[in-house]
Amino acid sequence: MKASDINKYSPFQPVSLKDRKWPDRKLEHAPIWCSVDLRDGNQALPVPMNIDQKVRLFKKLVAIGFKEIEVGFPSASNTEFNFLRKLVEEDLIPDDVTVQVLVQAREPLIRRTFEALDGVKHAIVHLYNSTSKLQRRITFGNATKDEIKAIAVNGATLIKSLLDEVPDTNITLQYSPESFSDTEEDYAVEVCEAVMDVWQPTPEHKMILNLPSTVEWNMPNTYADQIEWFCRTIKNRESILVSLHTHNDRGTGIAATELGLLAGADRVEGTLFGNGERTGNLDLATLALNMNSHGIETGLDFSDIDAVRKIYEENTGMKVHERHPYAGELVFTAFSGSHQDAIKKGMDLREDEDTQWAVPYLTIDPVDIGRSYEAIIRINSQSGKGGVAYILKREFDYDLPKKMHPEVGLYINGLADQYGRELTFKEIMDEFQKEFVNRKDVIDLKKFEITKMTETKVLGEISLTYKGEKMELEARGNGPINSVVYALKQQGWKDFNVEQFRSHSIGHSSASLSVSYVQISLNSDPAMRFWGCGVHTSIRRSGVNALISAYNRAQVAKGKTG
Amino acid sequence: MKASDINKYSPFQPVSLKDRKWPDRKLEHAPIWCSVDLRDGNQALPVPMNIDQKVRLFKKLVAIGFKEIEVGFPSASNTEFNFLRKLVEEDLIPDDVTVQVLVQAREPLIRRTFEALDGVKHAIVHLYNSTSKLQRRITFGNATKDEIKAIAVNGATLIKSLLDEVPDTNITLQYSPESFSDTEEDYAVEVCEAVMDVWQPTPEHKMILNLPSTVEWNMPNTYADQIEWFCRTIKNRESILVSLHTHNDRGTGIAATELGLLAGADRVEGTLFGNGERTGNLDLATLALNMNSHGIETGLDFSDIDAVRKIYEENTGMKVHERHPYAGELVFTAFSGSHQDAIKKGMDLREDEDTQWAVPYLTIDPVDIGRSYEAIIRINSQSGKGGVAYILKREFDYDLPKKMHPEVGLYINGLADQYGRELTFKEIMDEFQKEFVNRKDVIDLKKFEITKMTETKVLGEISLTYKGEKMELEARGNGPINSVVYALKQQGWKDFNVEQFRSHSIGHSSASLSVSYVQISLNSDPAMRFWGCGVHTSIRRSGVNALISAYNRAQVAKGKTG
Repeated sequence: MKASDINKYSPFQPVSLKDRKWPDRKLEHAPIWCSVDLRDGNQALPVPMNIDQKVRLFKKLVAIGFKEIEVGFPSASNTEFNFLRKLVEEDLIPDDVTVQVLVQAREPLIRRTFEALDGVKHAIVHLYNSTSKLQRRITFGNATKDEIKAIAVNGATLIKSLLDEVPDTNITLQYSPESFSDTEEDYAVEVCEAVMDVWQPTPEHKMILNLPSTVEWNMPNTYADQIEWFCRTIKNRESILVSLHTHNDRGTGIAATELGLLAGADRVEGTLFGNGERTGNLDLATLALNMNSHGIETGLDFSDIDAVRKIYEENTGMKVHERHPYAGELVFTAFSGSHQDAIKKGMDLREDEDTQWAVPYLTIDPVDIGRSYEAIIRINSQSGKGGVAYILKREFDYDLPKKMHPEVGLYINGLADQYGRELTFKEIMDEFQKEFVNRKDVIDLKKFEITKMTETKVLGEISLTYKGEKMELEARGNGPINSVVYALKQQGWKDFNVEQFRSHSIGHSSASLSVSYVQISLNSDPAMRFWGCGVHTSIRRSGVNALISAYNRAQVAKGKTG
Repeated sequence: MKASDINKYSPFQPVSLKDRKWPDRKLEHAPIWCSVDLRDGNQALPVPMNIDQKVRLFKKLVAIGFKEIEVGFPSASNTEFNFLRKLVEEDLIPDDVTVQVLVQAREPLIRRTFEALDGVKHAIVHLYNSTSKLQRRITFGNATKDEIKAIAVNGATLIKSLLDEVPDTNITLQYSPESFSDTEEDYAVEVCEAVMDVWQPTPEHKMILNLPSTVEWNMPNTYADQIEWFCRTIKNRESILVSLHTHNDRGTGIAATELGLLAGADRVEGTLFGNGERTGNLDLATLALNMNSHGIETGLDFSDIDAVRKIYEENTGMKVHERHPYAGELVFTAFSGSHQDAIKKGMDLREDEDTQWAVPYLTIDPVDIGRSYEAIIRINSQSGKGGVAYILKREFDYDLPKKMHPEVGLYINGLADQYGRELTFKEIMDEFQKEFVNRKDVIDLKKFEITKMTETKVLGEISLTYKGEKMELEARGNGPINSVVYALKQQGWKDFNVEQFRSHSIGHSSASLSVSYVQISLNSDPAMRFWGCGVHTSIRRSGVNALISAYNRAQVAKGKTG
């Protein structure tokens, strides 16, 4: 924005609440949840859902555990009316689920709404009108406060008078002063109390007062102040449920709801992944999982968030962004080396202790929402040594010795740096194999045949080529690798010492492979160390291959440096 | 998450700060901005930027107005080193821009970093190490608090000792206790003060203490409490700049930064559109525009946010989500009818008064960030009567009389309801034309020739077909439309009265068209009213066409009802 344009905007005037209590409180239990995916979410779609799509989404919302679901504005269009009728006629509304319907304060609309409710066991009838100064001035052409209040009271009266039309439906009444967060606080209370006077809620039969941040004009702490002030001021607080309905124009809609709950609200309205008008509504999945991550039970089951996401995306046509909390494709992925190393350490420790979740950089265990560690680590030039080793283990069962990680990590990261991009798992494995496994470029071991083997002695025959030249060598030692070391040194190739050896098998069947890792150092410069890897059906041969690989790598490196 | 999994999570323990001041404060000025797009943002990309892409993004960041830009981790890879060298060698760093480089506390890395800085005028050298209990236990294998503090102090000492290596660079020092928000507050202060003891900042030459919410484990108000406590506790507050660096794991990263600024911070680190590890960093564009929308000048120019978004998307490979605040494709789009009507009224009022921004449902004027009203309204079954009229006016210059809006809106919305999808602008116009304009399906007016015309009298000849049958009529009246009404009534077609007439021209050249609108009511049922529209190069003929269109529509409707 240009400086000259900024004059058109003014600071938001917060409510004065010096003795606020909400910042001292903690979230300790979940609110009543109401999904408005099928109404507020749907009306904001470039292509609204058809009835079949709505039914699919409704079923998923029920499966997640929502007990209150706004199903639409049945008097606004045939699609919305017919959708509710289908839910009723096909008996798709469980007995413990309440459907909510939105309606404006006009008699034909209310009558039509009640027609749509015929046969519903539990319903919330949701009346709204806009109350903010801005809306009174612009939308209602300078309507007075009393005129706007009269709209609410007349609507409430009309609804009350028609309740008898649906005697078999257990109806809860809900009123929203739309644009609440932009309405003078005392006037919002005045209008809400006028509606209460009509509906006469009791502690046994509460009504809902829903306080929308229809447009997020202000900061989340300001909204919390408004909610706390409202909860402290409204009469008969025990006869109402205070509900929040935040939008996200400033990118702080989730925070506004969280702080609003601290401020005393009982209930929230929102949508899956925050779909909704403009920047969207409160993201119910994120709020619920935020609570879970602090140990709070929510009654909502996001244990397979990918399945929820799939239904959502298929039916709304919207996409969940890669960085969306919990559900985004990249949010359980660490690219940075230091992050990868820390996550690996945290994960490794967890194999022993299955108690409190404590893994750096991951607020929750991805498994708890049906995601897996698989996506956690990708390898690019910024990845740490642990990352490559992790991929080799997870994807290919190669369990590299810890001391081998830096050498392999450095090598693979150098390639990623050189290519200027991330490497795929297959590329990582291919490059690892090419550089470290079963090398034949200097010494190519053609045959290693053991002619005699006791507990303490190995004798054997070796055929190999050295830079293309054929040779036959005699192997002798107290073990296979040792016997090959002897043979090489006999041949005059003496500038190495074996430092470390490890091996493991891959696979459990008869076709299992043995994988060995050998590190050598150079006698001429003991700081120079080289790992090699060998793979073979025989453990003997895999160890020897690892030795030869390390030796060949050392030769190539020596050739390069001098 | 399944209930059984929730036991592994615990509530976050907030700092105790009963006399907090931040909830009473307002944001009144912008912080110092630091973009970390090229480091934190880049390291989280599946495909990290190459040098050319980094240069393009760097140039855009400079153009937006960032004076502090973290350019990378030059000692970590050749790409990062060479990028900074390119900036220096091609003189791409303006004199008033400070580049920031990240480095760990190891001598070869610090030396390499200083090599990369050779020739840079202003730099921030950014040292970090992780300090949280979790990181100490897991990443550093149960390191003690003193050991971790020693890492920071040793790094700080090393950097201080090497400052003389770059005598021509004006260096500001920055220290981050990584994972600050998960670190015991008093220990964070202890480590930071130990670093201050080494670096000896003064009010004239401040150092930066950057307090990351590296992983967003807690609520934004808790982070604000931590920041306020830190600002009140740290020694020599006047010698340091307190910087925020939030992530977004709980979807409340922007809120955490906003509340952290209230709590006393001076500076923020973040990225364009919140790119970064996992769920991303603070979104700088949103925070800046949030401030603009409250009348606060920020020094950042997002007056063409689409251009910023384009550079961002092209170079990072990431996409901005449709519902992203300010920059998302759908955020200046209203689908709901009541929203559309309110926006239209707000916009219409603004033509008169160009003072404070006050349009319902839009927190800012899209024009101020280079976006336009064009995307505001789309038509689907939920759209209001105002929406269709708005499209017809904006896209096709048809300025329908206000009383005609409901009839046209209802008709078009019904079609969208029937098709179960949004209609394109062209479809809206086509359907409007087919239903309302120059109708010929009952009466087809072939010729209307005026034979005599005075100020008070029109005589003419009409040729038409009525349901296919040719007729010649005599026109007579005090005006063209009136003379045709006379002719029709003479013919016995008497069941109508003209209620309203309006016309306007489209286009300014000699090829301009006249558009007329006529409403008729039925004598047999005066509540039944029908609008018609006529378009012609002659205003006389366009008015007559509108009348015939309205008449034909009425005939079809009467035919249908009986």
